[in-house]
Amino acid sequence: MNIISLLTKKRKKGTLTKEEIEYFVKEYGKGNIEDYQATGLVMAMCINGLTKEEIKDLTIAMAESGDQIDMSEVSENFVEKNSIGGVGDKVSLILLPILASLDIPSGKLTSKGIGIGGSTGDKLLSIPGFRSDITIEEYKDNLKDEKISVTTNLLDIAPAEKRLYDLRRKIDCMDNLNLVAASLMSRKIASGANKLLINIECGYGSSIKNYRDGRILARLLMDSGKLAGKEVRCVISKMYEPLGKSIGNSLEVIEAVEALKGNFEKDVKEVVYTVGIQMILMAGKAKNEKDARKLIDDSIKSGKALEKFKRLIELQNGDSSFIDDYSKLGEAKYKYEVKSPCSGYVQMLDAERIGNIAIYLGAGRKTTQDEMDYTSGIVIEKKMDDYIKKGETIAYIYTNDESKINGASKNILDAYALGKKMFSKGSAILAVMTK
Amino acid sequence: MNIISLLTKKRKKGTLTKEEIEYFVKEYGKGNIEDYQATGLVMAMCINGLTKEEIKDLTIAMAESGDQIDMSEVSENFVEKNSIGGVGDKVSLILLPILASLDIPSGKLTSKGIGIGGSTGDKLLSIPGFRSDITIEEYKDNLKDEKISVTTNLLDIAPAEKRLYDLRRKIDCMDNLNLVAASLMSRKIASGANKLLINIECGYGSSIKNYRDGRILARLLMDSGKLAGKEVRCVISKMYEPLGKSIGNSLEVIEAVEALKGNFEKDVKEVVYTVGIQMILMAGKAKNEKDARKLIDDSIKSGKALEKFKRLIELQNGDSSFIDDYSKLGEAKYKYEVKSPCSGYVQMLDAERIGNIAIYLGAGRKTTQDEMDYTSGIVIEKKMDDYIKKGETIAYIYTNDESKINGASKNILDAYALGKKMFSKGSAILAVMTK
Repeated sequence: MNIISLLTKKRKKGTLTKEEIEYFVKEYGKGNIEDYQATGLVMAMCINGLTKEEIKDLTIAMAESGDQIDMSEVSENFVEKNSIGGVGDKVSLILLPILASLDIPSGKLTSKGIGIGGSTGDKLLSIPGFRSDITIEEYKDNLKDEKISVTTNLLDIAPAEKRLYDLRRKIDCMDNLNLVAASLMSRKIASGANKLLINIECGYGSSIKNYRDGRILARLLMDSGKLAGKEVRCVISKMYEPLGKSIGNSLEVIEAVEALKGNFEKDVKEVVYTVGIQMILMAGKAKNEKDARKLIDDSIKSGKALEKFKRLIELQNGDSSFIDDYSKLGEAKYKYEVKSPCSGYVQMLDAERIGNIAIYLGAGRKTTQDEMDYTSGIVIEKKMDDYIKKGETIAYIYTNDESKINGASKNILDAYALGKKMFSKGSAILAVMTK
Repeated sequence: MNIISLLTKKRKKGTLTKEEIEYFVKEYGKGNIEDYQATGLVMAMCINGLTKEEIKDLTIAMAESGDQIDMSEVSENFVEKNSIGGVGDKVSLILLPILASLDIPSGKLTSKGIGIGGSTGDKLLSIPGFRSDITIEEYKDNLKDEKISVTTNLLDIAPAEKRLYDLRRKIDCMDNLNLVAASLMSRKIASGANKLLINIECGYGSSIKNYRDGRILARLLMDSGKLAGKEVRCVISKMYEPLGKSIGNSLEVIEAVEALKGNFEKDVKEVVYTVGIQMILMAGKAKNEKDARKLIDDSIKSGKALEKFKRLIELQNGDSSFIDDYSKLGEAKYKYEVKSPCSGYVQMLDAERIGNIAIYLGAGRKTTQDEMDYTSGIVIEKKMDDYIKKGETIAYIYTNDESKINGASKNILDAYALGKKMFSKGSAILAVMTK
């Protein structure tokens, strides 16, 4: 077997065998296949496509390329949530403690976020003292004892996936849904989940730009997951405007705590509940959606969810006292009010643009080397369908660099489109796919 | 402009602009574009195709990447013959002196041949004393004075084409007809021809494996040539069995001399005449095919063609006395008769296989570094449609390495398929395309 024959086969629209895909992943991971050869194959895969069987084989080969975590000692029925990522997405921060309070082990292996929006791990690091680099043993122990834990200690999970992902970035093949599905799935298989809930966000603020692609990706994930013996469900939600009101690490932690206190932003609540209900059903903790919804309601109303969140922070060395006094998270040096120069209904609020401004302010990384500024970010006061009067405050800028205020402010205004009519954006949820 | 945007555009079935193609060729030629990036683009070009305009732009950009020879001082109407290459193809050796004797400047820029069959330059080097590395100035002077010359002194012709060709070999994208057309055409444009006759050989012994591909390639060459301001005609001929009877450098020179003496093999005569007639018409030396055919007949019968061949050899320092005594070319140490173990009509004689045996015997190179053995090769005595009696001689092996006789002999027998019925192969010419 050699890489050139694979490359030619795929160029001529052939189907690669399991052995051929394993060979490619293994040898590329070892550095025995050169980048130009891998590029040829990836390009041919992008253009000529992959069968479901090929996607499954690629997924498993990448999953098996490094360490694989065994979660069976935590639960035979470990459900993990994953999202494509979007601007202002603090759903995991809110859901983990809710589910843990329902006795569902709620863990998250998380890495440094790149681009728009930090990872769950990044956000938690804005809490004084919080340690995200606990070992896999501590992670599992916490999950067994308290049902909740988060770690950025990824060991050597799916290194071949990492190499291939980097190559795809270099040759701009990030939008190929087959490869997106295989990448995501391989990491999740290696991290030991046997049930997966994937929140696919579609819109300007996500790498999945529209609903059609979201559905295709969901189908790919569910089918290849099934072939790999995993149960996969997908919640497809909107990511045209930012989710909730806060963008930025400590700002999103505060919004999450508010939600756990019962003060949800409308769209955040829709996504948290829809995703949470499916996960409760997958974990076998409720018979139907109505019962599952009540479990979430009760967890929040009783304060148990917030209690679990406190517990997560304390278990990982953090100071949870900020929950009653947000100023303990520290505050950005400058807080600037952005005011509208005109009146009208918000017909569009571009999440991608808002996300990029947040990165500019220091709330996100461009590369894994970049330093994160935990207190900077944006709080949106007016979202789609809201009516704005001239001179009203539409957002707040939080920054530690005064020189960035003007640029950020101008760009925030540009992210809004006002009009005379209400757009009527409807629900944040586009679809729930359970099979 | 950057290479990644080009790569993505072509991946998504876009059409590259002239500026984008020029950028790619220029920067790749300079080494500013890495191989993995170029591979991505070439792969996308192979799969998603190129428009005629793109092929033309690629052709011209590659042609302009190095030296360009001005042939206008030799003739305003310089016609050059090129062939795809095939086993036993000695057509140029025969045609150059015929055309020169008709006052048509007949030059050939030729390089070291790789794979099946040496180049015209390689074959001439089997003549004692012959110098093929004359300067371009000598080449032009000889063409002006005597209408005939051959040089392997290629200067820096289309270096970007060379780099791209090497990459295509590395990633096995040699069979893409768009790129084959652009490659061939770019070299010809740089070498100064303004009219081109291209002999496309189709069959096992050529890189173009069937007539359909031959016709597509001819159309691509003619259309992109037209866009680049060149007149291009194509003769499509068969290359299922070797052309003529000899394969090997000095052996082919002898067959060519025999042809110039009027003793043509049937298929060689068909190709020489068909190609020659078109070139005479392109050079404006005859009104119609009948007149052109008569010119060739006369050139051979009068001995003028053979005289021109002698002149070519003498002008380039060679000893032409072998024309009357072939032993002066030197002879291989061993000559071995291959006899048939059974009787029947030759229904197939695999040119690719015969070509590979010739390479094995030393008559062809695998890489440009390989030494050429000028006297080794094969002489075929029985071709398709011939009847063979058991025990009859079907071929001769010429070699300087006794140990190779057995293997070569066995393989030659394997290249033949005998049967009870005659195949009736018909003409060697498949099509003549003039517009």
